[in-house]
Amino acid sequence: MQPSSMRPANPPDTHIASTGSYDYMPKTDRFHEDLTTDPALWCRDHRGKTYSLEEWIELTQSFHGYPAPGVVMGAKMVDIAMRRVPAGGLFDAVSETSKCLPDAVQLLTPCTTGNGWLRVVPFGRYALTLFDKHTGWGTRVYIDPALLDPYPETRYWFFGIKPKRKDKSDRLMDEIAQARERIYGVQAVRVTPELLSKNPSDQRAICPECREAYPAGHGPVCRGCQPETRYFFLRGA
Amino acid sequence: MQPSSMRPANPPDTHIASTGSYDYMPKTDRFHEDLTTDPALWCRDHRGKTYSLEEWIELTQSFHGYPAPGVVMGAKMVDIAMRRVPAGGLFDAVSETSKCLPDAVQLLTPCTTGNGWLRVVPFGRYALTLFDKHTGWGTRVYIDPALLDPYPETRYWFFGIKPKRKDKSDRLMDEIAQARERIYGVQAVRVTPELLSKNPSDQRAICPECREAYPAGHGPVCRGCQPETRYFFLRGA
Repeated sequence: MQPSSMRPANPPDTHIASTGSYDYMPKTDRFHEDLTTDPALWCRDHRGKTYSLEEWIELTQSFHGYPAPGVVMGAKMVDIAMRRVPAGGLFDAVSETSKCLPDAVQLLTPCTTGNGWLRVVPFGRYALTLFDKHTGWGTRVYIDPALLDPYPETRYWFFGIKPKRKDKSDRLMDEIAQARERIYGVQAVRVTPELLSKNPSDQRAICPECREAYPAGHGPVCRGCQPETRYFFLRGA
Repeated sequence: MQPSSMRPANPPDTHIASTGSYDYMPKTDRFHEDLTTDPALWCRDHRGKTYSLEEWIELTQSFHGYPAPGVVMGAKMVDIAMRRVPAGGLFDAVSETSKCLPDAVQLLTPCTTGNGWLRVVPFGRYALTLFDKHTGWGTRVYIDPALLDPYPETRYWFFGIKPKRKDKSDRLMDEIAQARERIYGVQAVRVTPELLSKNPSDQRAICPECREAYPAGHGPVCRGCQPETRYFFLRGA
């Protein structure tokens, strides 16, 4: 999605054929790479704008509310995946967790929750996939637990033990910065056809209870008025 | 959430008591209001930053990818709801549709998909709720079909008939701008207790198939490796 002038000359690991398909062939389905990129840069967005680690932490704080380690790692993961997306192609995103990672995707790619190009699947795995929305071919990036041994604070964080002390959380961020690409696995994948089809807009009906419009296919009453799914009560009701 | 200096003096319809609870009491559970606000402004974010309609359309284009009418209306809906949120309190958000509305919430409030303060419930109703994350009291704003009669292009859009011709889509945006607050309903609500409880972090296990970490409560194998839920295949697999 970046203009070609913004992409590094001779990217070390991928070359995108003009057909839009990948012409690299991984020797295994999983491979790890220590990409040689400018150490002053942490990530770049789909328009080619680059961020240093400090700049990225600032943007994270502004959008996400706090400088979450998960969004800092997420940016590196998006960056790794985006380098493997055919330039100029349209891609969608999947985040396999709702925690942190979706915000890195939303800030760095064209994919957001509201435009439908980002989907969150509730797998609880710290992984994301960017895929060509026509062919379904794409790249999945995940945190690989087997690679965390040299990074003890990151390992604690990853297994749900959050640092409470300031020195520990500084140490975690130092480790993430130091590890760069080294803690992530990369896979070439193809998503299932269901992810490629657009949901046709359902015909809309007026709910007899709330008098609001809803997708007619949900039944005679909208989900907001069905006792099993309603999430609020009117004041006084 | 806005600094008090940014809020209009004597807001016409609400006054926030220092206890953090509302001291207005709507006469009915549903009420519509034509709020008298500066016509040059379209919305404002939780930090008090204001946007004209043109500025908001520009930000929508940048984040959402195109100037979607749903995000323009969504901003007005968030603005209406945010005026009723106790100042200084912490609030969460629910969007009852995944279409467009979540992006207005993410750009104007502290609530994002990745920080967990925004939830999307798949009701297909064009409505959002902001609620106090401790008490559950909040405000719901929705597009009221009964109020759309004077706005025919908006009505077509709302019932899923998208304008294909440029003059029609300009007309739609003109109508949205002209309608301002007049097409939305407002409700005082209390969300169900499930929305107030934080999901405790599940213990994590290593999946015997993919060797990645996942919430142990999902079963002996992670959801990504279960045939019913997996969404991709490895290249060559």
